[in-house]
Amino acid sequence: MTYRAPVEDMLFTLRHVAGLDRLSADGLAPELEGGMAGAILEEAGKFANDVIAPLNTVGDKIGSRLENGRVTTPPGWREAYMAWAEAGWNGLTADPEFGGQGLPQLVQAACVEMWNSASFAFALGPLLTAGAIEALTTHGSERLKETYLAKLVSGEWMGTMNLTEPQAGSDLNALRAKAERAPDGTYRIFGQKIFITYGDHDLTDNIVHLVLARLPDAPPGTRGISLFLVPKILVNQDGSLGAPNDVRCHSIEHKLGIHASPTCTMVYGDNGGAVGWLIGEENRGLACMFTMMNNARLNVGLQGVAIAERAYQHALAYAKERKQGRAPGWTGEGMSPIAEHPDVRRMLLRMRAQTQASRAICYKVAEGLDRAHRATTDAARKAASERAALLTPIAKAYSTDIGVEVASMGVQVHGGMGFVEETGAAQHLRDARIATIYEGTNGIQAIDLVQRKLPLSGGETVRGVIAEMRDVVAKVAASNAPAFGKTAERLREAVDSLERATSFMLEALGARPGEALAGATDYLKLFGLALGGTSLAQKGLVGAENGDEHAQAARVATARFFAEQVATEAPALERAVVDGAGAVEDGALVFAA
Amino acid sequence: MTYRAPVEDMLFTLRHVAGLDRLSADGLAPELEGGMAGAILEEAGKFANDVIAPLNTVGDKIGSRLENGRVTTPPGWREAYMAWAEAGWNGLTADPEFGGQGLPQLVQAACVEMWNSASFAFALGPLLTAGAIEALTTHGSERLKETYLAKLVSGEWMGTMNLTEPQAGSDLNALRAKAERAPDGTYRIFGQKIFITYGDHDLTDNIVHLVLARLPDAPPGTRGISLFLVPKILVNQDGSLGAPNDVRCHSIEHKLGIHASPTCTMVYGDNGGAVGWLIGEENRGLACMFTMMNNARLNVGLQGVAIAERAYQHALAYAKERKQGRAPGWTGEGMSPIAEHPDVRRMLLRMRAQTQASRAICYKVAEGLDRAHRATTDAARKAASERAALLTPIAKAYSTDIGVEVASMGVQVHGGMGFVEETGAAQHLRDARIATIYEGTNGIQAIDLVQRKLPLSGGETVRGVIAEMRDVVAKVAASNAPAFGKTAERLREAVDSLERATSFMLEALGARPGEALAGATDYLKLFGLALGGTSLAQKGLVGAENGDEHAQAARVATARFFAEQVATEAPALERAVVDGAGAVEDGALVFAA
Repeated sequence: MTYRAPVEDMLFTLRHVAGLDRLSADGLAPELEGGMAGAILEEAGKFANDVIAPLNTVGDKIGSRLENGRVTTPPGWREAYMAWAEAGWNGLTADPEFGGQGLPQLVQAACVEMWNSASFAFALGPLLTAGAIEALTTHGSERLKETYLAKLVSGEWMGTMNLTEPQAGSDLNALRAKAERAPDGTYRIFGQKIFITYGDHDLTDNIVHLVLARLPDAPPGTRGISLFLVPKILVNQDGSLGAPNDVRCHSIEHKLGIHASPTCTMVYGDNGGAVGWLIGEENRGLACMFTMMNNARLNVGLQGVAIAERAYQHALAYAKERKQGRAPGWTGEGMSPIAEHPDVRRMLLRMRAQTQASRAICYKVAEGLDRAHRATTDAARKAASERAALLTPIAKAYSTDIGVEVASMGVQVHGGMGFVEETGAAQHLRDARIATIYEGTNGIQAIDLVQRKLPLSGGETVRGVIAEMRDVVAKVAASNAPAFGKTAERLREAVDSLERATSFMLEALGARPGEALAGATDYLKLFGLALGGTSLAQKGLVGAENGDEHAQAARVATARFFAEQVATEAPALERAVVDGAGAVEDGALVFAA
Repeated sequence: MTYRAPVEDMLFTLRHVAGLDRLSADGLAPELEGGMAGAILEEAGKFANDVIAPLNTVGDKIGSRLENGRVTTPPGWREAYMAWAEAGWNGLTADPEFGGQGLPQLVQAACVEMWNSASFAFALGPLLTAGAIEALTTHGSERLKETYLAKLVSGEWMGTMNLTEPQAGSDLNALRAKAERAPDGTYRIFGQKIFITYGDHDLTDNIVHLVLARLPDAPPGTRGISLFLVPKILVNQDGSLGAPNDVRCHSIEHKLGIHASPTCTMVYGDNGGAVGWLIGEENRGLACMFTMMNNARLNVGLQGVAIAERAYQHALAYAKERKQGRAPGWTGEGMSPIAEHPDVRRMLLRMRAQTQASRAICYKVAEGLDRAHRATTDAARKAASERAALLTPIAKAYSTDIGVEVASMGVQVHGGMGFVEETGAAQHLRDARIATIYEGTNGIQAIDLVQRKLPLSGGETVRGVIAEMRDVVAKVAASNAPAFGKTAERLREAVDSLERATSFMLEALGARPGEALAGATDYLKLFGLALGGTSLAQKGLVGAENGDEHAQAARVATARFFAEQVATEAPALERAVVDGAGAVEDGALVFAA
């Protein structure tokens, strides 16, 4: 089973839910005039379907391997990567000054989803490069930009992020890697970093590592961390490659999934120190890293969407083909396709509705990022920036939870065949499982949402988003369309629950932080349900395009299913948030002794 | 991280929730007088911890392999199996006439859980043997029993179940394997069977296959299926092994998990026909198979409990050791164990509460089976039998869903380490994933619950179970114990939801079967929440044993967590059941064309 990029739904969501049409109407997306967005998505879809998707199975079966200190990617990967970079896909949003195309994040979001649906392990490498490009663009010196940026934008070189150490995962305070100042203004880097995605590989001739380390006189904690650029191969004055730097891949992990993405333990400075260049200011590395991380979190959210879409397509194709039993009302000859059985149909609808809901949420974040850069007033840019910041942890955590759930349901739809690796359904589940963990576990995302994002502008940002949801609910109610069923009613309940839980959180945050933290994960999910549900309803409200009544009816049916079968959990989550902290606190005694 | 059998909680659950004490008081468990149950569990726990658990990792890494037509299990497995059988664990509940110990299913349930926690793939083989023993005991001729039963009970030989064919999975109507009558009263079997667990292996010198096939003059559909006993090696008159039968393992599957459990494609009759003996009557094979299947479904439910328990222990040990950040209120030096962080504690509590809830449900089914065999009146036996029948699909599906959820949460608690296979957390998830699929997918269980089990005794069986739940809720409310928090309130809501959803189902079944089926999975989960929640509350009501106030407080805290954080979903599920069928039916148009 291969993948077909769902260009139609992507474009529809971009335009009508994420606000691409509004962005265009406001004159903020001139590059996309004249149907450019659709054209780009069509092209990207072809590349994803035809070139990347076929690599997904070999990537899983053979994986990347470390031999004699060098990592080799699976057969066909280097060629595909070079073709992909050659076609310009790596620099879609990058600064045209350095060879990028300067396109909106909205278009990039759809493309990132496609690459990851086609092959999660393949698409992951370029996401790290994107982070490096962003950090360098925002915080790098002119000299560093001149040397590295164009090569990263073209994809000739790739980038990595080096944060984690064995004792420092979610808590970067514990970071130990060292940096020493050299007389020539460069630095020498020492230390071990673990879980470094694409830390070594053969896709490109050089790799640009961004590494967090401490200077000797740095204050303790996260205020004493600096960010350094450490190339795998040193770059000569003329831009050609010189001697190897003092950095090596010590080992790669044997992982549950994404076998083709090499997860490396990197050793810096075994032979006198790896040469590094400071990015930004000394001891301000964390701020630079956060620049990369916010974008990376959206991209990981898109990975959740991507794997859900792939798993959904896979399961749907199987369920339409596989015949067992006779479904109620089946009038065909012999056995019916299992897609006709109510319980299987329920699973497929749940997969579809959740996938599309998470897509809408992620694309909305991308639109926020675009407005944050492109809007014409400071106030509008700030509002958009805060909106994107608020929704980013939801996009990351809610979408990746959906990625796992949908991939697991995909296995279930396949029955016994799902448990057999040959079918490919299980790979989606194995691949999906990392996304709830890396770039800040989903628990960390929930804490970020509650502690840092809800208080933005004194709560006005979150209240604004809730008000938009209410607007959608009112429109659904006013539409009086019977096909919506109880969509308005259920979504209203969900938004009510979200609003009350939000008030509770804003109040608890100051006085009883333990209570707020105990409910953070459920709160994030509640937010996802309300936002996802209203986003699907938005799609249903648009009406038929190009006379395609069937697509319109399917959008309404999908929104209805989400509202009546998925968003129904909202009041339960509100209750767990508002009323459940005591159970978590009391539970402390369970683990005592 | 290894496994320690939670003997204390098992015994407590057996005695006070599953009704072992009541069974004893009624004089129905004389074998367990004088603390025998505890002594057996202690011994089983030692064997599970010390002998089986250490095999789990090698089982996963090396797996079972097919070479030259023979399947080899991983190093150490044959020795462990022989020691296990030697110790008498295989025949715990079997008829003493054939060497069994005739013990209650209640004790067996706890032991099955232990073997599966220690190694899911190891314990799976004997579960198939148990099914063969049961079918043979109930339906086999005296001659077959004499030849095979004692060897199966001792574990000298193992058994298999051969149902599935490529075109016949959930729907056995489509079965094609053939049986021909031979002049000597035996049969010749022809055909291919897939997904045959432990279809071939080197643990025992013979394997007793139970095979479903059709006679030439059989009616179509499931009324034309017969059950045959087909030994791997033919048995001589004197009981010694003779010539190989015409059956072979054609291939084994490469699976997501349980790598050490060989999943075989079996070919019968390539060389003139495999010699088979009829079990029961011709064309009545399905009834015989259902005898095996009900028990097997409870055992698969116990696999869900088992993998959840193992994953929980694994995650808890890691969370107590791993230090990151400082939890709110943490007064220790440096970083706190992650178990102190509210969100991690919430995950651990959820893992624990769900594991124990599923344990209670499965043990209750075992008690029903015991009473169904041992009660002194026909009426009591019938009531117990129906109760066990009602709860079996819940035990199977709800527990195995919990197995997957808890194992996945265990990966999450481990953070990045959870995705690395070396840690072992991911293996639990991979292993757990099969249990929601085999022995009837969880969707099939939900249909069984709604279509066949709810109508038992005109709905009186289910109403009786609900009345027992109400009784527990009333006792919690009357206890006025502040530590229960809102347990009574939340459980009352859950039971109310279950009761209304049950009335809806009973009514919809006849008139609108499509509606009933669309909500079957949510209904089953709702049942699990109400039954699991009240079962945990039962434990909290017992009071301290042996002056252990801490254990008592932990039981109450666990019950409270389940009621306030897990069972809260009940009203949402009721809504999806009662009100959500339209969304599923409407969704049909989504997949049209």
